[in-house]
Amino acid sequence: MAVDEITVVCWGLGAMGSGMAKVLLERKGVRIVGAIATRPEKAGRDLGEVLGVGREIGVRVTSDPEEALEAGADVVLHATSSFAREIYPQLDAAMAAGSNVITVAEEMAYLRQSDPKLAAEIDQLARKYGVSVLGTGINPGFVLDTLIIALTGICTDVKRVRARRVNDLSPFGPTVMRTQGVGTTVEEFRDGIAKGTIVGHIGFVQSCGMIADALGWKLDEITQTREPIISSTRRQTPHVDVKPGMVAGCNHTAHAFMNGEEVITLEHPQQVLPGFEGVETGDYIWIEGTPPVNLAIKPEIPGGIGTIAIAVNMIPHVVAAEPGLVTMKDLPVPACMMGDMTRLAQAARGDGEGA
Amino acid sequence: MAVDEITVVCWGLGAMGSGMAKVLLERKGVRIVGAIATRPEKAGRDLGEVLGVGREIGVRVTSDPEEALEAGADVVLHATSSFAREIYPQLDAAMAAGSNVITVAEEMAYLRQSDPKLAAEIDQLARKYGVSVLGTGINPGFVLDTLIIALTGICTDVKRVRARRVNDLSPFGPTVMRTQGVGTTVEEFRDGIAKGTIVGHIGFVQSCGMIADALGWKLDEITQTREPIISSTRRQTPHVDVKPGMVAGCNHTAHAFMNGEEVITLEHPQQVLPGFEGVETGDYIWIEGTPPVNLAIKPEIPGGIGTIAIAVNMIPHVVAAEPGLVTMKDLPVPACMMGDMTRLAQAARGDGEGA
Repeated sequence: MAVDEITVVCWGLGAMGSGMAKVLLERKGVRIVGAIATRPEKAGRDLGEVLGVGREIGVRVTSDPEEALEAGADVVLHATSSFAREIYPQLDAAMAAGSNVITVAEEMAYLRQSDPKLAAEIDQLARKYGVSVLGTGINPGFVLDTLIIALTGICTDVKRVRARRVNDLSPFGPTVMRTQGVGTTVEEFRDGIAKGTIVGHIGFVQSCGMIADALGWKLDEITQTREPIISSTRRQTPHVDVKPGMVAGCNHTAHAFMNGEEVITLEHPQQVLPGFEGVETGDYIWIEGTPPVNLAIKPEIPGGIGTIAIAVNMIPHVVAAEPGLVTMKDLPVPACMMGDMTRLAQAARGDGEGA
Repeated sequence: MAVDEITVVCWGLGAMGSGMAKVLLERKGVRIVGAIATRPEKAGRDLGEVLGVGREIGVRVTSDPEEALEAGADVVLHATSSFAREIYPQLDAAMAAGSNVITVAEEMAYLRQSDPKLAAEIDQLARKYGVSVLGTGINPGFVLDTLIIALTGICTDVKRVRARRVNDLSPFGPTVMRTQGVGTTVEEFRDGIAKGTIVGHIGFVQSCGMIADALGWKLDEITQTREPIISSTRRQTPHVDVKPGMVAGCNHTAHAFMNGEEVITLEHPQQVLPGFEGVETGDYIWIEGTPPVNLAIKPEIPGGIGTIAIAVNMIPHVVAAEPGLVTMKDLPVPACMMGDMTRLAQAARGDGEGA
């Protein structure tokens, strides 16, 4: 690798994408060379203005992907949608431009489990173009998969994995309130689940698949349940007013089975203001194995900033990776890459001795 | 890779080495083809007898390294001593035989920090022989370095890292009692520290170095303190009798500085029966950063079985690694590799699509 700086195109300038762009501006050995906005009203303006950082960056935001991609940046940081088939043309365009891709689309965290055909297609394209493609984020991507996998590394044997991520949705806006069913009646909640307008968490299938493949488990089946969290108190945020008896959020659980036994249970009750009913937020992991592991992170790792951070932090590892569709379990552990990212990518490639 | 089974030579059959051998016997896609005992009285017997597993393995334990190494096993699992310069000839012999090496010698967890010259030499040799060499274990190797690094991956910024590993030494025998100063008077403890007979924990320099390099921090200095943990109660184990006023263990702490500021603090108070004075064992990590992280694993990950597990579990990653001296921060996250290890190594090498 002979680059002096890793070049990056930011694709998607919503909360996640603009957060990543801001973090990149603080990092060394990396430079934003393009920015693609999905919303046309952001196009034509300087990136610094769109991000509100109070200075010019010298990068004109565009709504024309081709215009930004033609530079052939080392990495495209991608944050436009959760769904793999929806973003596939975008991934294809980025790969064809010769760029490695890091996306926070939840389904991409372990597409092999949820859509093996598309995963194989993306893998083949990535190899053809000589680039690597990674799906990451806090969840899926870290708390309920990569972190669990890493902890099983100290076990001689694992019988069962259970984890629970309890968070507070109050910082989020109307879209999250709607997709989690916050502020609905129980009847509306059930109806929303049936119609697919209330979705709960996206990523359980991916997390279960990544854990199972890392451990060498062959799953029979993954089932999911989504239940309303009915509030017994009034819970108000700037975006929602949940009265007693109404729904404060969605208790979404995944169950993965092997040889008829439940071997993975992942619970993610997402609601506004759980503290109002004495529920402490946190990330909890229990491994039944030799030895057993009992982990708690309190409060939980925040989803927004955590996703922004891990996407940026994986840049050197993705630049150094072999071509193909890669996953968090295949790459070196993430790290807050505060040093020169180009140098860190070189070290990850083994260009330095003993590195 | 066209192997059907990963072949392993176990070098060192003490508590760690024989523990690893026993775990290997339970795993798929991996086969022990040689066993080297440091103690001559174990030589000449079948490995199954030496391990006490109640059956013949068909591997004759030898005290002649050459005899076991000549098979050119895929991996040598090495557990003979803590010190890199002491084991260097053993590593050299294993590499020359064309074997990748996983060692639990504490200094090898990040030799680049403690002995960069020797690290460079081993790296060169490994590249010459086309093998990879990994130092791992629970600590150093996981709790106070790899796990911390992984957690910083969800931060946009880290100011300071503090971690504390509180364990109970009561399962351990006379050697550990002696090197930790358990059962000494305060005067004897101070004297033992001065003379180097009481050493405390081995691995702080390596853990600090690995964290700093992963984050891109340039450390000025790493200092260490070793203080006696004076018991106020009587603490008895099969191996030691600590009376009130005597030393129950060693409170060993490392401080790493960057630009004059303490950025890493690692504490490892090791003692017998801390519960007698209300001290809960556990692994604790606090990251001052954006976001902050507050993690607790209770009880602590046990050192013995954890070290055995992680050494075995890293086999597929080491087999798949590029030649050279590698570290836990350079390889994919560990995982309890319960499936076919050969297949897992192939997947790690990217031989399967989307893997």
